[in-house]
Amino acid sequence: MAQKEKLIALYPKLPLLKEKLSELRQDIVSGDWVVIATGRARRPQFFRDKERVQFSLPKSKCPFENIKQSGNPEPILIYKAPSGKDWFVQVVPNKFPAFSYGKCPRVQKQGPYQWMEGVGFHEVIITRDHVRPMALFSDSEVELVVKAYQERYLALKNDPCNAYILIFQNHGFEAGASIPHPHSQLVGMPVIPPDVINSLAGSRRYFHSHKQCVHCAMIQWELKLKRRIIVENNYAVAFCPFASRKAFEIRIAPKKHSSHFETISDSERKAFAYVLRKSLYALHKGLNDPAYNFFIHTTPTKQRDHHHYHWHLEVLPVTSVWGGVEFGTGIEISSITPESAAAYLRKL
Amino acid sequence: MAQKEKLIALYPKLPLLKEKLSELRQDIVSGDWVVIATGRARRPQFFRDKERVQFSLPKSKCPFENIKQSGNPEPILIYKAPSGKDWFVQVVPNKFPAFSYGKCPRVQKQGPYQWMEGVGFHEVIITRDHVRPMALFSDSEVELVVKAYQERYLALKNDPCNAYILIFQNHGFEAGASIPHPHSQLVGMPVIPPDVINSLAGSRRYFHSHKQCVHCAMIQWELKLKRRIIVENNYAVAFCPFASRKAFEIRIAPKKHSSHFETISDSERKAFAYVLRKSLYALHKGLNDPAYNFFIHTTPTKQRDHHHYHWHLEVLPVTSVWGGVEFGTGIEISSITPESAAAYLRKL
Repeated sequence: MAQKEKLIALYPKLPLLKEKLSELRQDIVSGDWVVIATGRARRPQFFRDKERVQFSLPKSKCPFENIKQSGNPEPILIYKAPSGKDWFVQVVPNKFPAFSYGKCPRVQKQGPYQWMEGVGFHEVIITRDHVRPMALFSDSEVELVVKAYQERYLALKNDPCNAYILIFQNHGFEAGASIPHPHSQLVGMPVIPPDVINSLAGSRRYFHSHKQCVHCAMIQWELKLKRRIIVENNYAVAFCPFASRKAFEIRIAPKKHSSHFETISDSERKAFAYVLRKSLYALHKGLNDPAYNFFIHTTPTKQRDHHHYHWHLEVLPVTSVWGGVEFGTGIEISSITPESAAAYLRKL
Repeated sequence: MAQKEKLIALYPKLPLLKEKLSELRQDIVSGDWVVIATGRARRPQFFRDKERVQFSLPKSKCPFENIKQSGNPEPILIYKAPSGKDWFVQVVPNKFPAFSYGKCPRVQKQGPYQWMEGVGFHEVIITRDHVRPMALFSDSEVELVVKAYQERYLALKNDPCNAYILIFQNHGFEAGASIPHPHSQLVGMPVIPPDVINSLAGSRRYFHSHKQCVHCAMIQWELKLKRRIIVENNYAVAFCPFASRKAFEIRIAPKKHSSHFETISDSERKAFAYVLRKSLYALHKGLNDPAYNFFIHTTPTKQRDHHHYHWHLEVLPVTSVWGGVEFGTGIEISSITPESAAAYLRKL
C-alpha cells in the first residue's frame, strides 16, 4: 500500500480573508440555507455575456405551429388574440404526458416500498408566435396567458384525483424546454409534491409563532427596504428574495394576503400580468434572453387549513450547472447578491 | 378583450391508456415521491448515445497538473501512487472556496431574516492523471482516494465550526465540474444542510415506527429481490434505488449497519472501494462516460442521536435537464426504470 508523505494542519496559519467570505442566508419560509458567494461575486454583465445553447426548430417541423396536423390531441381551450384576428392561446393535452387521465390511483405496496399509478393531467398552454417569448408580449397578451392558467386551473380543481396543480413555464434548452416554440404547462397530480409540502409547513410554522403570514412579513419588509424590489403596482410586487437560490431569482406575489391563485379577479389579473411582463422583460433585456423556469406555488386543491398561505410565482433563471454541493446538500450557491441583481434589473 | 371560443371538458372521452401510465414511487427515507415515466421509458442505449459536451483543457493550462506553480495553496495531504513512483493523491485547499477558514460564525439578524458568515472548509482531492477518471482506476487507486476522504474527514471532524462535512465528486461539464482534471471535493460547513436534515429525519421516523434502520430494511429487501442490484461483496452493495430520482442512479452502502463513514476499517475501505470502482466502471462503459455527481451522506459531526442512521454514497448521473416540474415540485421524472437500469449495468 501507498505511504502517506505529508499531513499538515494548515488552516490555523492561513490569514482570515474577511472580504472573501461567502454568506449563508436562511430562507424564511423553508428554513433552508443558501450560499451567496459574495467573495466570488460576479458582475451582472457576466451573466448577460454567457454563451447560450442555440435552440430553434423550423416552423415546418414545429408541433405547436400546426397543432392539429402534428398529431396533438384536440385543443381544450382557445383564446383569440387581443387584436381579434387569429388565435393567441391554445391549450391542448400533452401528447407525451408525465401524468395521464385515468381512475384515481390508490397507494400500493411492493416489499417495504409504496407506489401508485401516475394518474393526473398534463396540458400545454401554447401561444401563437413561433419565436416571440412571453418577455416580449404586450400586457394584454400576458394577461390572456394568465387567464388561460386560471381557467384551466378552475376546470381541473375539483377533479377528485388532483391533489396539486402546478402551472409552469420552461424557457430555453438549459431550462429543460424540449420544444422552442413558447409555451407553458399545467400538471395535475395525485400527491402534494415535497417542495409544496415544505413551503406550506414553513408558512404554517411562521404563522403559529408570529401570528402573521410569512410572505406578508417578507413583502412588507421588502417594500420598506426597497433594495431588492424590481417592479410593483397596486396589486403585485416583484423582488429578488433575500435568500435567493439562484442568481437573478425573482419572486412575484400579490401585496395583500391571498391564499389561492385561482381566485384572482379581472383587475388583479391585469395588474399581476403587468408585473410579470416587466420582470420577464428585464431578465430578457438585462441578461440577453436567458433560459429560465417559472412556476406558481398556491394552496393545494383539497387543502382545508390554508388561511396562512400566500400564493406567488417564482422565476428561476438558469445561470449555473448544479454540482455535488447542490445535489448532496440542497444548498445552492448563487454568485451575485440579490441586492445587486435587483438594482440591475430595476433599471431596465 | 379577447373572446373565448371553445371550452371542452375533453378528458372523460379519452381512452384510458394503461400502458402509458407513469409510476409515482415513494422514497422510503424522505417520503418524497418520484415519477418513473414507464410509458415514455427509454432503452439504456438512448442514454449511452446522448451527445456529451466536449470538456478538456491542455495540460499546460491545467491548475491540477502543476499544483504549486498554478498558485494553489500548499497541499495538506500527499499520497504516493501504489506503484510508489510519483504522487497519486494530493489534497489542497480550494483556491476559490465556497466556505473559508475563519472564526465560527454566529447567526445575525437583518429585518425578518437570518444570515451568517460562510465560514468552513473547502478542499480539493486531486488525483495524478490529467484525463483518466476514477471509473478507470485500479482497485488500490480508488482505495487510496477513499482513504484521503477518510483522513481529511477525521482531521476536520472536531473543528468546532463544522456541523457537516460533505465529500463529493463532479465528473463532466454537465455535472458542474469547472476543471476537467479528475478530482473530488470536501466542504465543511457550519449548518446541517436541508437534504441531510431530511435524510436524518426520515431515518429517525422509520426507526421509531419500525424499530429498524430504514437503509437496513431497504438493503435486506434488495438483496433478497436481486432485481436492482448492480454489484456486491461481503461488505458493501450497489443498487439502483426503487424510487430513483435520476435514470441510472446508484446507491452504495455498507451491508451491515454503520452510522459514520469515517469509522470504516482498512478491510472495509478496500471492499467499499471495489464496489465503488465497479459501479463507476459500469456507468462509464455502459453509458459512454456520462457526467455524474456522487456524494456521501453520513451522520453529522456533532450529532448525538445517530444510532438509526446508515451512511451511504449516492451516484447521480446527469441524464436530463431539470425543468419547471422539478424546480416547482421537487419531483424528478426518470425515464428508465431502476430495474432496467440495474439489469443493464449489472452485465458490464
